[in-house]
Amino acid sequence: MGDKRFFLPKGFKAAGVPAGIKQSGDPDLAVILSDREAAAAAVFTRNAFAAAPVLYSKQVIAKNPRGLRAVVINAGNANACTGEQGIRDAEETAALAAKALGIQPDSVFVMSTGIIGVPMPMEKMRRGIPEAASRLSADGLEDAVRAIMTTDTVPKFASAEVRLGDAKASIVGIAKGAGMIHPNMATMLSVITTDAAVEPDALGRVLRWAVARSFNAVTVDGDTSTNDTVLVMANGASGAPLIQEGTEGFLVFADALLSVAKSLAKQIARDGEGATKMATVCVRGALSRDDAMKAAKAIANSPLVKTALFGGDPNWGRIIAAIGYSGAVVEPEKVSLRIAIGDEGSHGDLLLLASGGRPAPFDAKAAADIFSAKEVLIEVDLGLGMEEATVWTCDLSHGYVDINGYYHT
Amino acid sequence: MGDKRFFLPKGFKAAGVPAGIKQSGDPDLAVILSDREAAAAAVFTRNAFAAAPVLYSKQVIAKNPRGLRAVVINAGNANACTGEQGIRDAEETAALAAKALGIQPDSVFVMSTGIIGVPMPMEKMRRGIPEAASRLSADGLEDAVRAIMTTDTVPKFASAEVRLGDAKASIVGIAKGAGMIHPNMATMLSVITTDAAVEPDALGRVLRWAVARSFNAVTVDGDTSTNDTVLVMANGASGAPLIQEGTEGFLVFADALLSVAKSLAKQIARDGEGATKMATVCVRGALSRDDAMKAAKAIANSPLVKTALFGGDPNWGRIIAAIGYSGAVVEPEKVSLRIAIGDEGSHGDLLLLASGGRPAPFDAKAAADIFSAKEVLIEVDLGLGMEEATVWTCDLSHGYVDINGYYHT
Repeated sequence: MGDKRFFLPKGFKAAGVPAGIKQSGDPDLAVILSDREAAAAAVFTRNAFAAAPVLYSKQVIAKNPRGLRAVVINAGNANACTGEQGIRDAEETAALAAKALGIQPDSVFVMSTGIIGVPMPMEKMRRGIPEAASRLSADGLEDAVRAIMTTDTVPKFASAEVRLGDAKASIVGIAKGAGMIHPNMATMLSVITTDAAVEPDALGRVLRWAVARSFNAVTVDGDTSTNDTVLVMANGASGAPLIQEGTEGFLVFADALLSVAKSLAKQIARDGEGATKMATVCVRGALSRDDAMKAAKAIANSPLVKTALFGGDPNWGRIIAAIGYSGAVVEPEKVSLRIAIGDEGSHGDLLLLASGGRPAPFDAKAAADIFSAKEVLIEVDLGLGMEEATVWTCDLSHGYVDINGYYHT
Repeated sequence: MGDKRFFLPKGFKAAGVPAGIKQSGDPDLAVILSDREAAAAAVFTRNAFAAAPVLYSKQVIAKNPRGLRAVVINAGNANACTGEQGIRDAEETAALAAKALGIQPDSVFVMSTGIIGVPMPMEKMRRGIPEAASRLSADGLEDAVRAIMTTDTVPKFASAEVRLGDAKASIVGIAKGAGMIHPNMATMLSVITTDAAVEPDALGRVLRWAVARSFNAVTVDGDTSTNDTVLVMANGASGAPLIQEGTEGFLVFADALLSVAKSLAKQIARDGEGATKMATVCVRGALSRDDAMKAAKAIANSPLVKTALFGGDPNWGRIIAAIGYSGAVVEPEKVSLRIAIGDEGSHGDLLLLASGGRPAPFDAKAAADIFSAKEVLIEVDLGLGMEEATVWTCDLSHGYVDINGYYHT
């Protein structure tokens, strides 16, 4: 992991400026540019009401997976539920960036987050994009990540370094997201840049594998937005040998990218709307990974478990009940449940709350202390097989109700 | 509908007494008795951690679908996650009631709700059951329904009358349930009694059909408890002709039973933990009933929609997004969304919020007035087919977080 905050891999520059899209006047327009063509892969929302920039950028990636140069991201308007005009606005956004940056329009990826159902304020984009282009710098990533924040309280950044042959490459990611879908702030966006050289198919495979274990394993409220997108750009500026499936560097790179994606996902859970704490739910001993994921998500999405976390009450019955309705194959007498302070990587002593379908004789004070901590690990062993899954979530607090109840359209 | 509150059909008596199971000392033990053998059918929780009384009563119904005489219901302890001892305690509960009532043990149905993972206080049941048996009366239903309340703020009762041939029969239901699973207050219980004469298979078919359109269409927090049970007993005391599938009375009876079940389900939604209002979500124009139900439940379970209801904000984007991730077959440009004050049966003017995948030019003040009402109808037309589904829910408030965050085990 790099120590310096908000650096970029070789060959990348970034900028973030206020374009006047957010009512607050805060920075709301980011551009990230690679000085050479980058291999790219992306994962998009599965929401049937996918926003215009999602529809547009899907085509860009399909057409030009080896030649991406830039991504333009705006906050304050999601360009979702905007019909044909929305598609034209996403196209114009790419064209504006291409002109300002002196690159081809089909090498520009577009992301948006913000209010939905309102046409994009294109006159602001027409002024803002050249402004952002003029400010691009190798030190500009912090400005860029701050420009894409909506209800986020902290900017989200993670990095990793890998040795590939004789060269060192960096993987650097930024993300935004606080509710899984904020009201009209359609949510989770992430851009991961690397100066490793990666063949596009291999990059896509690594990205989908990592997203399943990171961004798709984090839940604030179980909702899925119209705009969720994760993009990875690999420009090869490190000089490291090309990574393909089967090459030596493939697993090294995959593992490093996963660590970046996981770190960003956990930062999103920790910064969930109104969150006072983060919980990590590990389910092991499942017959299939799908079963493990079902049980982990049922626990992590349960409003009863999430309010118990808020209240600091180690209510094992709510966790057991969530496992029971998750749809995972379960034999009650084989299930055991433990909790600890910490997360899956680093935690204190595990306390057994239930096994054999019954509560264990646990120390109520010790259990309450764990559930009152800022980071809570909930570990379930289904006792049936070898598969496991990990999900990150946050508590359900008065703050969540305030943010989402009193936010007016 | 009957005007007199809390009456029972002919041939039924009920009682509710404090047995000391609830810490509060409130009534917590109910008995309902039929003076003759009743046909019976039941629907049980699908939670893998089904509680002992569920496992026990399933056997009773399977063995004795024509000869049920009584149901014993306690609140304060769910007898869930209690292992072999739990099953023995459910058996003893039935035996105690059989002895006190002078009937066969296999004619007694048992339900429990309350804390889970704690052995049943059988010494209290041994004193309480004879006490309740001694107080049985045709006027005892209000005492019975009050005895099964946990976080409910009001007792839930509904009735209907049907003419069958020359006779009149009543259908009378009671229910409890406030969260779909309260913490350790495993939740939704209902008993429906009728003096109609119904063949058990027909009774089962009607019950499953009605439950899918009532109790299974109400959601407070999407959680499903270990104890959820709906029982119907038909004792034939009205003298009406036997109802079977294909007889004239079948649909009349089914429709009346559905009206009772729907009324109870809506009372549960209206009394959801911390609820300040009830919402009815109607999805029509779906390709299948399953699609309609998926879309309706996604809207009704969305914490973002539920907080918008709490805040009185007609946030159509959250509703559209929930439809989009529901898994229902959707073509965004064919979807329309309307809201009104009221419910599916009786409502004010419908206001169009969105159609063709885009917001409609609606009056923001009128929309806010509707979303601020005590009863809100959300009507979605998917524009694809002929199928529909209706779901009832409540808002997500500070009260929900308080009740479930500060309830300690």
